[in-house]
Amino acid sequence: MSPTTRDPDRFTALSAELGICFGGDYNPEQWPREVWAQDVELMREAGVNLVTVGVFSWARIEPAPGAREFAWLDEVLELLHGAGIAVDLATPTASPPAWLGIRHPETLPVDLDGVRLVAGSRNQFTPASRVYRAHALAITRDLAARYAQHPAVRMWHVGNEYGQLDYGDEAAREFRRWLRERYGSIEAVNDAWATAFWSQHYAGFDEIVPPRRMPYIANPAQAVDFRRYSSDQLRACYRELRDAIRDAGAAQPITTNFMGFFAHVDYRSWAGEVDVIADDQYPDPASATAPADIALVQDLMRSLGGGRPWLLMEQSVSATSWRGHNLPKSPARARRDSLQAVARGADGVCFFQWRQSRAGAERFHSAMVPHAGADTDVFRGIVRQGADLARLRPVVGSRVQAPAAILFDWPSWWASDEPALPTDRLDTVTEITRWYRALWRRGIAADIVAPAGDLIGRGLVLVPHSYILEPDAAAALAAAVDAGAQLVVGPFSGVADGNGHILAGRSPAPLRELLGVSGEEWCALPDVRISTTPAWRPGAAYAASILGERLRSDGAEVLACHATGPLQGLPVLTRQRRGAGAAWYLGAVVDDGLLDAVIGEAATGIDGALPGLRVLPDGLEAVRRGDALFLLNHSDDPVKVPVPHGLVDLLADEQAAGEETGTVVALGPGDVRVLIERQDR
Amino acid sequence: MSPTTRDPDRFTALSAELGICFGGDYNPEQWPREVWAQDVELMREAGVNLVTVGVFSWARIEPAPGAREFAWLDEVLELLHGAGIAVDLATPTASPPAWLGIRHPETLPVDLDGVRLVAGSRNQFTPASRVYRAHALAITRDLAARYAQHPAVRMWHVGNEYGQLDYGDEAAREFRRWLRERYGSIEAVNDAWATAFWSQHYAGFDEIVPPRRMPYIANPAQAVDFRRYSSDQLRACYRELRDAIRDAGAAQPITTNFMGFFAHVDYRSWAGEVDVIADDQYPDPASATAPADIALVQDLMRSLGGGRPWLLMEQSVSATSWRGHNLPKSPARARRDSLQAVARGADGVCFFQWRQSRAGAERFHSAMVPHAGADTDVFRGIVRQGADLARLRPVVGSRVQAPAAILFDWPSWWASDEPALPTDRLDTVTEITRWYRALWRRGIAADIVAPAGDLIGRGLVLVPHSYILEPDAAAALAAAVDAGAQLVVGPFSGVADGNGHILAGRSPAPLRELLGVSGEEWCALPDVRISTTPAWRPGAAYAASILGERLRSDGAEVLACHATGPLQGLPVLTRQRRGAGAAWYLGAVVDDGLLDAVIGEAATGIDGALPGLRVLPDGLEAVRRGDALFLLNHSDDPVKVPVPHGLVDLLADEQAAGEETGTVVALGPGDVRVLIERQDR
Amino acid sequence: MSPTTRDPDRFTALSAELGICFGGDYNPEQWPREVWAQDVELMREAGVNLVTVGVFSWARIEPAPGAREFAWLDEVLELLHGAGIAVDLATPTASPPAWLGIRHPETLPVDLDGVRLVAGSRNQFTPASRVYRAHALAITRDLAARYAQHPAVRMWHVGNEYGQLDYGDEAAREFRRWLRERYGSIEAVNDAWATAFWSQHYAGFDEIVPPRRMPYIANPAQAVDFRRYSSDQLRACYRELRDAIRDAGAAQPITTNFMGFFAHVDYRSWAGEVDVIADDQYPDPASATAPADIALVQDLMRSLGGGRPWLLMEQSVSATSWRGHNLPKSPARARRDSLQAVARGADGVCFFQWRQSRAGAERFHSAMVPHAGADTDVFRGIVRQGADLARLRPVVGSRVQAPAAILFDWPSWWASDEPALPTDRLDTVTEITRWYRALWRRGIAADIVAPAGDLIGRGLVLVPHSYILEPDAAAALAAAVDAGAQLVVGPFSGVADGNGHILAGRSPAPLRELLGVSGEEWCALPDVRISTTPAWRPGAAYAASILGERLRSDGAEVLACHATGPLQGLPVLTRQRRGAGAAWYLGAVVDDGLLDAVIGEAATGIDGALPGLRVLPDGLEAVRRGDALFLLNHSDDPVKVPVPHGLVDLLADEQAAGEETGTVVALGPGDVRVLIERQDR
Repeated sequence: MSPTTRDPDRFTALSAELGICFGGDYNPEQWPREVWAQDVELMREAGVNLVTVGVFSWARIEPAPGAREFAWLDEVLELLHGAGIAVDLATPTASPPAWLGIRHPETLPVDLDGVRLVAGSRNQFTPASRVYRAHALAITRDLAARYAQHPAVRMWHVGNEYGQLDYGDEAAREFRRWLRERYGSIEAVNDAWATAFWSQHYAGFDEIVPPRRMPYIANPAQAVDFRRYSSDQLRACYRELRDAIRDAGAAQPITTNFMGFFAHVDYRSWAGEVDVIADDQYPDPASATAPADIALVQDLMRSLGGGRPWLLMEQSVSATSWRGHNLPKSPARARRDSLQAVARGADGVCFFQWRQSRAGAERFHSAMVPHAGADTDVFRGIVRQGADLARLRPVVGSRVQAPAAILFDWPSWWASDEPALPTDRLDTVTEITRWYRALWRRGIAADIVAPAGDLIGRGLVLVPHSYILEPDAAAALAAAVDAGAQLVVGPFSGVADGNGHILAGRSPAPLRELLGVSGEEWCALPDVRISTTPAWRPGAAYAASILGERLRSDGAEVLACHATGPLQGLPVLTRQRRGAGAAWYLGAVVDDGLLDAVIGEAATGIDGALPGLRVLPDGLEAVRRGDALFLLNHSDDPVKVPVPHGLVDLLADEQAAGEETGTVVALGPGDVRVLIERQDR
Repeated sequence: MSPTTRDPDRFTALSAELGICFGGDYNPEQWPREVWAQDVELMREAGVNLVTVGVFSWARIEPAPGAREFAWLDEVLELLHGAGIAVDLATPTASPPAWLGIRHPETLPVDLDGVRLVAGSRNQFTPASRVYRAHALAITRDLAARYAQHPAVRMWHVGNEYGQLDYGDEAAREFRRWLRERYGSIEAVNDAWATAFWSQHYAGFDEIVPPRRMPYIANPAQAVDFRRYSSDQLRACYRELRDAIRDAGAAQPITTNFMGFFAHVDYRSWAGEVDVIADDQYPDPASATAPADIALVQDLMRSLGGGRPWLLMEQSVSATSWRGHNLPKSPARARRDSLQAVARGADGVCFFQWRQSRAGAERFHSAMVPHAGADTDVFRGIVRQGADLARLRPVVGSRVQAPAAILFDWPSWWASDEPALPTDRLDTVTEITRWYRALWRRGIAADIVAPAGDLIGRGLVLVPHSYILEPDAAAALAAAVDAGAQLVVGPFSGVADGNGHILAGRSPAPLRELLGVSGEEWCALPDVRISTTPAWRPGAAYAASILGERLRSDGAEVLACHATGPLQGLPVLTRQRRGAGAAWYLGAVVDDGLLDAVIGEAATGIDGALPGLRVLPDGLEAVRRGDALFLLNHSDDPVKVPVPHGLVDLLADEQAAGEETGTVVALGPGDVRVLIERQDR
Repeated sequence: MSPTTRDPDRFTALSAELGICFGGDYNPEQWPREVWAQDVELMREAGVNLVTVGVFSWARIEPAPGAREFAWLDEVLELLHGAGIAVDLATPTASPPAWLGIRHPETLPVDLDGVRLVAGSRNQFTPASRVYRAHALAITRDLAARYAQHPAVRMWHVGNEYGQLDYGDEAAREFRRWLRERYGSIEAVNDAWATAFWSQHYAGFDEIVPPRRMPYIANPAQAVDFRRYSSDQLRACYRELRDAIRDAGAAQPITTNFMGFFAHVDYRSWAGEVDVIADDQYPDPASATAPADIALVQDLMRSLGGGRPWLLMEQSVSATSWRGHNLPKSPARARRDSLQAVARGADGVCFFQWRQSRAGAERFHSAMVPHAGADTDVFRGIVRQGADLARLRPVVGSRVQAPAAILFDWPSWWASDEPALPTDRLDTVTEITRWYRALWRRGIAADIVAPAGDLIGRGLVLVPHSYILEPDAAAALAAAVDAGAQLVVGPFSGVADGNGHILAGRSPAPLRELLGVSGEEWCALPDVRISTTPAWRPGAAYAASILGERLRSDGAEVLACHATGPLQGLPVLTRQRRGAGAAWYLGAVVDDGLLDAVIGEAATGIDGALPGLRVLPDGLEAVRRGDALFLLNHSDDPVKVPVPHGLVDLLADEQAAGEETGTVVALGPGDVRVLIERQDR
């Protein structure tokens, strides 16, 4: 594979010039030419400075095999450039024209039922198809040759939301190739997949097929390797288009858009391939926990980029349309969502899409310019956002302070997501999300880190659910504790090795010495009660469910026990002090109350963004980014909080900032403040 | 396509001779010959005068390709004719013999997963198959040639419950042909389908396939056109068989059986093809609203026939068997269901089926002669029904008085049923059904009308949910209001044009001037409260959910507002007086209470079937058909209602009618009265 | 077909030598050789005397087509034999190697959607494939030739959990062959399937396909015949391998493992083919009724073997992993489960599996040696079980006393499980299970008998739901009543003949004279109330739901009536005395209270295992096997019950047994006693 080519300076230079990037997907091919001029005028009114063009233009550019129609695109780029709007030019490769599947049916994906999917929606290609890839490469080369030096083009956007799966014969061939590269020999595959079980031994690579529909439960190691392959195969598609663009002399940043905790792609293995991390985020307005939950996603994206600014590539202005029931956002909510991304490290805030499509599958997905036109609250909100973001230029390039670390990686998630577990009610991302909320309400940002990275100096390290935990990762955790960290480990961690083979001996095998506790059986749990011990919060009552472990203390202090259920009387929460730190273990899926109590106590030594408050008022989010203190009131009630002296609000005009008396700042429902020491701007 | 050949006089002549048609599907091929004689004797006992023969007889007539076995059918027809029972002779084309699919697999339908369905049930054909159609035509021609002049045959029944879908290669070919006919050029298709979205542009018709399984949401315009094609393709099947029968010299009425609000066929486009509207109706006895809901279906059928009498072709005597849990009907309930159909314009009441099948998939579908035989409450109930219907001969041919009009059409329903909407909880037929109940409980029958028809003179026009509303339809509504109508429009109406493209500008674009109100965003709603304004029912509290709209009044009187939720304070109910009428707008899906209040108030000027009562007692249905007043007590309680002086009950003997004192008529639980001015009979 | 070859003496001889068999599936090919020695040592520690080897070893023995690798198996058998552990040697034919499906795709099963299933799990073969069967036969012949005389091999285990379904072209060919054998002519098929319905007549066998995906409901008779075929086809696979082993000179017992009330195989038709009934049992620890419910399964297995001892071939030590949420068993629960099987006639208690697999789809299925190793409660529990079972040698070979009989057979279950019934909420096995609980809580064991068997002398005969009931079965019931039995018949019994054709006339046609009651319509029921009559428990109030019947008494005493609902006032419970007995009829699905009251009263003359108690304390199970009285306390509370004088507890040491004072025995929560008259042992 090609070497990592990431160069973050390319985006740094762009944002230094533009300030916070602001804009959205722009699909002019859906509109007559007279609308284009109105678009540009409205973009200027809103302060738009970056639009993504061409994501779905393949059939427009290549209406028949080999044709090239670039004139319209030339015109669009000129128009935008003339208005001072930068272009993020997309390869149109996510959605091939219908003729490709008609002429080359093997380019169409086959799902796990063996059904070959057809055109009529989007994304009807398999990344395993050489024919698809040749066509995608050809159009990308021509696009890059034509526009690499075009002054309007300031960024490149490869594909779109890579995530296509394929289980067909094309995939079988590529999966075998991938396995050969990964393992070298078929016996190495047999070992990794433990094919002695259920008579699954393979005598050769040609006997292997993707995990299609089977009579019963699939081999989990095969299934996880197929997930790895699928992620890698998509990455190969991305890489060859990116390299083609670079080979054409393009100097702009190149990226593609991620999708948060997306199950089918290991973004950590992709992070080194993009010049800037870009992400699509669609929190559900119907969810009361959405502000905290999307903050976790934003912390993940920032972490994938090594702490550098990232780009919110897509979000919705108001409602989405792909959910069953799509609640709208108010303009105030949309503004707060955008500012939250900046608070958590974004140097760009874009939307899908500029102008709402009159037809097609996204006709009800909201847009910056809605069906009802520009004389609407939605568009006025966009104008306000543009003005707000312009005021935030001082934060461009600055870093978020994240004192906590949370372990997460895709292969562990995948392995714990295969069927035939003690319970199917335990999900890695759900658990991380629950744990993260305890940090969020304390104003503590977190880096979402890979296992085995250096954790020395971290005050707080959380391992909510790391099913796979290899020895180097365990060693890094022990070293962090020795150096002073409070480590909190959640249940069903340290279960398996990198192939998903269960580790022998008492559990969690790689951590039991560090934790001072060990178990002999994981147990799906009914709803049970938890009692704390006199040593810790005597009398408090909590609950557990989903999964527990038949534990004994091997030296750790027992802080809580099962009060009912199959593990009655056994430990559920322990702490072992060690070196300068301590290692906590939660041996069951406990309720939010106990989880918050444990994390809160482990975080005692950590300062949140508002050090004067251990816990923030309900719904208030506080983040420090560089010199700025972001306060976002996600609640429907006004709040007041103490802040350091002498700050001004970047979003308000001078007078408004001056209104703050003393050290208390007030935020109305839904309000946002970005406080910074007075400075020349 | 062939010209419409409808001639309603053919059925008028038949019913004038027979009186109310009464009978059912008769499948003698399932029984030994000795049972046939018993059947005919029992039919005579019950007053049966019409039976449908041959619906599933293809394999019996043509057990091998090209064979013809008609002797048994000759005998059945002779037997029935000898007993004075008219025959509705069916083409057996709904269910081909197994040999057709074995010899010509391309005649078998392919579902949207690409699975080719097999024989073993029924209906295993695709209407796109030329081979199927040739076989169906051949047997129909022979049948018609043999029986067109047979004196037993008084009606023809083509196919059965047309509704077969197919997504296979045969369908692809026919869909392309249909598109070519509809659009002329591929660019016209691209415009109609807005294929600039998601790179879906087609360079030629050969690139188009049916909307099979796709990676993501299908193009909604393509999907709706495939629904149109499917309905039209089935109609073509019907037409060629009907024409063959007519060409053989048959002078009898020809029809096929509809299925109410059936999603896969646009019956309005079929109505001109049948000599009499015939419908299959299976209300669920477990549903408390079934009486009102089936009344709506009956009003639809009457409306499809231009107000002329129609035929209840199939219903169940007691339980169905295709539901998960099939509650029975009591004989009294079965009788009331039959009389309800007559009340609402039917001149025929038939059942599926005459004798309960001992085996097969419908062995538990009830029948006129049940497994337990004729010495049963079920059969005694049938005998009673026969006698009742004979007494109703005076109403034959008369028309129902329907002062209200409700807009409904299939393409609008289809377009609003495609995925990716603000909410998937809003269904056109569900809404129409809810609205209709407010009329039903006031004794107001409705015509279910196509958009753009003439509405001048209507006192009340309801538009519960017309997602597509073209300019001519909007103009007809405005004209009706000017002429004095109370118009009530429901939410998410006037959203899209005929291709399903969202109309630009404030919503509802084609009606906003008429309504004096406009919106800028449709919003999926959580459960919210609605408060009426002092101008209208001050203090009343209602609720809304599912969908609302960000509205402002542009002159209309605001009668109610959102009291909570994302649209708090905005209008939800408005009224604009105009000309001699008024236009009401309900900008959200409101609860039954508010819906009833609005429709009740809009209906103030309309007389129901019992003008003395604005609202009927719970469960009482009242309909005026010709000179007769039908009163049906669907409740478990006795009711008394005032009626005009001097009426007699057609169903009761003279004494019973004489019992009515003064102007009040009493109905016991489940009872039915058909009151008419005393006359010679 | 080959003649039945069952010889129960083969297993009798083995258990006489070994005592209660104790062990589990042993899969040494999953482990390095050094683990094997530890395994044998631990087996000896636990008292293991029988292990099943080779169930999933096909790919290990035949890694490439035609290869044979037996050396490792030789070594395993020698090792076990050297340690005195008997081997149940399996044919590895349940799970073919991947190469078989790659080289011969027609060996792979096709599901009812037409999807060909692939390797990667297990069981990927169709029993219809000649190629699969030739390969399975070849490896079985070689295995038998090599090991038939091996002294370690004491039993043979053919295949594993036979249950594979296939709807593909291979199955079509074999289904047609099977139909030809069963029916002789295509017209006999047409009659049995009633193909006059829906035009399904077949002109030849070649027109018939398996019941794959169809446009609508399948012909139920065809579907039931396909179930019969599938069961028979699997049996043919079993038979040819068993015969090959016998032909190689093997004298050991041969069997395969059943799965209780498994829907896809008619075990009664298999029972004569195995030398000992062996069964896999996985009661759900989350179910409060599991102890009674699994007792029913054990009574079924014992009955299938004609009352002879059977073998619990697989169970879990703690949690399973194939459920969504897999609660563990405590060691005490695991012990009680094993002893329960012995109580109900098992002479062997085995587990899946010996050592927990580190990888593969069953990595979380518990095992005798868990991931955490031998120093665990789980393994200590196994050691205790081994010791307990050794103490139970006196019960080996003895029979359970089962005074009651319950009618059950697979074809009736199948026919009542096809769709399009009055209700889909009535399931035969659910009903039998509910009825059985009333016996279990009275300490009354039951034989689960085929219809038409001799029932003379039975004091209590239950027919919970025998949808199909042929004349000879009805005659046997009448004879039993005449001879003194209390017969209780449940609703929807005696509905259909052997082809599933509904019986004409009042229902239940074959029983109405015996019961003195008859109905004219089965009715799906809403929830209704039931009132008893003054003649029987005046004033008691019960409920019914799901299904009732429009009944009248034709002479039977009416004991309860519908108090509400569509059958208000009609009988629901009747009793007719006849000869020396009485026939009870429950004409609706009644609640547990009424069911228990009826069965309790009908059981008045029957002695349970503890004759002094009509109803046992909650959770206590009592069974008499031979001279032993088994008492199992499944509850969390201690219980005391009176027992005969002078018994000792086989499980306790002498002192413990002596502790029992007088005639009362105390059992702690979860405790088990096996009481027997003092004797030399």
